[in-house]
Amino acid sequence: MRAARYYGKEDIRIEDVEVEKCGEGQVRVAPSYVGICGTDLHEYLGGPTFAPTKPHPITHDTIPITLGHEFSGIISEVGPGVASLTPGQHVVVQPTLYCGTCSACTSGVENVCYKGGFVGLSGGGGGLSDSVVVPKRAILKLPDGIPLDVGALVEPLSVAWHAISAAPLTQDSTVLVLGGGPIGLAVVQCLVALKTKKIIMSEVSKSRQRFAREFGAHHVLDPKTYNLVAISKELSGSDGPDVVFDCAGVPASITTACQAVRARGTVVNVAIWEREVLFQPNILVFKEAKYTAVLGYQRKDFQAVIDHLADGSLKPEKMITSKIKLESLVEGGIKALINDKESHVKILVEVGVGGK
Amino acid sequence: MRAARYYGKEDIRIEDVEVEKCGEGQVRVAPSYVGICGTDLHEYLGGPTFAPTKPHPITHDTIPITLGHEFSGIISEVGPGVASLTPGQHVVVQPTLYCGTCSACTSGVENVCYKGGFVGLSGGGGGLSDSVVVPKRAILKLPDGIPLDVGALVEPLSVAWHAISAAPLTQDSTVLVLGGGPIGLAVVQCLVALKTKKIIMSEVSKSRQRFAREFGAHHVLDPKTYNLVAISKELSGSDGPDVVFDCAGVPASITTACQAVRARGTVVNVAIWEREVLFQPNILVFKEAKYTAVLGYQRKDFQAVIDHLADGSLKPEKMITSKIKLESLVEGGIKALINDKESHVKILVEVGVGGK
Repeated sequence: MRAARYYGKEDIRIEDVEVEKCGEGQVRVAPSYVGICGTDLHEYLGGPTFAPTKPHPITHDTIPITLGHEFSGIISEVGPGVASLTPGQHVVVQPTLYCGTCSACTSGVENVCYKGGFVGLSGGGGGLSDSVVVPKRAILKLPDGIPLDVGALVEPLSVAWHAISAAPLTQDSTVLVLGGGPIGLAVVQCLVALKTKKIIMSEVSKSRQRFAREFGAHHVLDPKTYNLVAISKELSGSDGPDVVFDCAGVPASITTACQAVRARGTVVNVAIWEREVLFQPNILVFKEAKYTAVLGYQRKDFQAVIDHLADGSLKPEKMITSKIKLESLVEGGIKALINDKESHVKILVEVGVGGK
Repeated sequence: MRAARYYGKEDIRIEDVEVEKCGEGQVRVAPSYVGICGTDLHEYLGGPTFAPTKPHPITHDTIPITLGHEFSGIISEVGPGVASLTPGQHVVVQPTLYCGTCSACTSGVENVCYKGGFVGLSGGGGGLSDSVVVPKRAILKLPDGIPLDVGALVEPLSVAWHAISAAPLTQDSTVLVLGGGPIGLAVVQCLVALKTKKIIMSEVSKSRQRFAREFGAHHVLDPKTYNLVAISKELSGSDGPDVVFDCAGVPASITTACQAVRARGTVVNVAIWEREVLFQPNILVFKEAKYTAVLGYQRKDFQAVIDHLADGSLKPEKMITSKIKLESLVEGGIKALINDKESHVKILVEVGVGGK
């Protein structure tokens, strides 16, 4: 079968690989649509970072590994002991790999498993192939009415859902979102789904500003034009937004987030940081604010996103800015995003719409 | 009357000043015992920092101002409209000054009032004088059985009580306290009062280590001898302490606190920071930990401390390492703490035990 395999920096190959066996408690999925993620770009440009260069503690694989961790698909085979699923069902795969035994897993935080990884990044196959075998617990059914291409957006939306679940939000909240990349835009959509009263987006790119408006941000500000701290305080009608989501992860954003948030407010960091930053904790001290960090998602976040897609409160179709074939992954997908990331939110790779 | 007045860096004078009028809704207190605080030392060594060099928005005073914000005393006069208090009562003064109208005050967080200050630091008199006039709301009665010298410890204990109230503690919690200065030792005592199962103190000074043990820390570690992150994980019996209190506020402590805390754990910053520090937010991200900052205290914290002193679950007498007269404030108090802070926890200035 075909698979997009990551060998290292700037080296992704579409190859013919062996089909893996579908064993006890496992499910074979024929991926339909696969989103290309910022992490994929980082691996291509500067990796291997997440891709294992020594045997991964869960998959035991090393590079080359198959890419693709944001995907929908169709069940093509179920292993022994999988009673509740049948071939032909449309599904989404939650790609989290976790050990189940470490202290994070046993305290119910398997998304930060100390040995953890992802299908499509850590070995054990990936969505960018004609077939991938995953444990039954990774499967979520996609209800009728949610198309398979939208199903591929469940993963990035679940990152956002997990992030907003970490914040003490109410419908009356004023929220500032820093950074209008795919995750920032997904956060805006999840906030809209929760009917959040005031959503302020800070983003420099004109193209992304337009997306933020389309997805329902009430105020979209260019931080190069506006004093974001002052204007977000003014827009909040009090001493600042109740919650600030940092989806930018740049040195200025941590300080802006902490300066903007109201007394006793919460900053939720959704970003992964490339390096240390200079930080003055007094900014939080003098208003008793909280700084919370989130990582990935849990099964309940996937289910919440699917439920909100099903009831129409999440309408993410416009995130899909291009669809390409597996053979164009590098040129039409990864390089397109690297060279013109502002025009794109999400490029989907159409691997096999009807299943193979 | 006598008053210890702060004029600026290394300039504190015991002077004769006018007695202030006790007006509507106000109470005159004759201070009995006054603790010398780290903030006083900072003002002496490097201020004015908190002491106002332009009219303070609440007191309208500028330096020179009277010092002393940790104090007990005896009511000597009540102004019109103060029915519930009478001269002769033993009391503690909560020194917080707040405007009552800013967005922090109106949302119930008057301890971070944007115009706020402190009796004894921001003008409007202070404890280091024969008489101080404060609003009725600043007064808390000291029950029989709590001596006036112990009453002067209510303020630093309230800082600690406020800090532990910001953490999701249970009696089963494992807690790491970084820094065994007066506030770190007060945090240990408050945790003991809550019957916290495992209290680990990190402190380099042998003298402070001994205090930490006396106040009930279960494990006292020198971070120069031990790998604090590794050993606190081991002692917690899981992947780290549930809560870490940073009472040190030095560049190493923020990183140690965030590295040591367990997945989904909470770091509570109790320190004021002198400058920016290098910080890698990923340390929090990869375990979804929280970083919370606290400042000062509220009336309910003072009341909780008084209640726990009254029922005997707080026994802070050993914090008092010296008692001096007002005339010895600089030599016997401030300079003694600067030159030998490790032997001391709290030096009390005996202003007028029986009231004047």
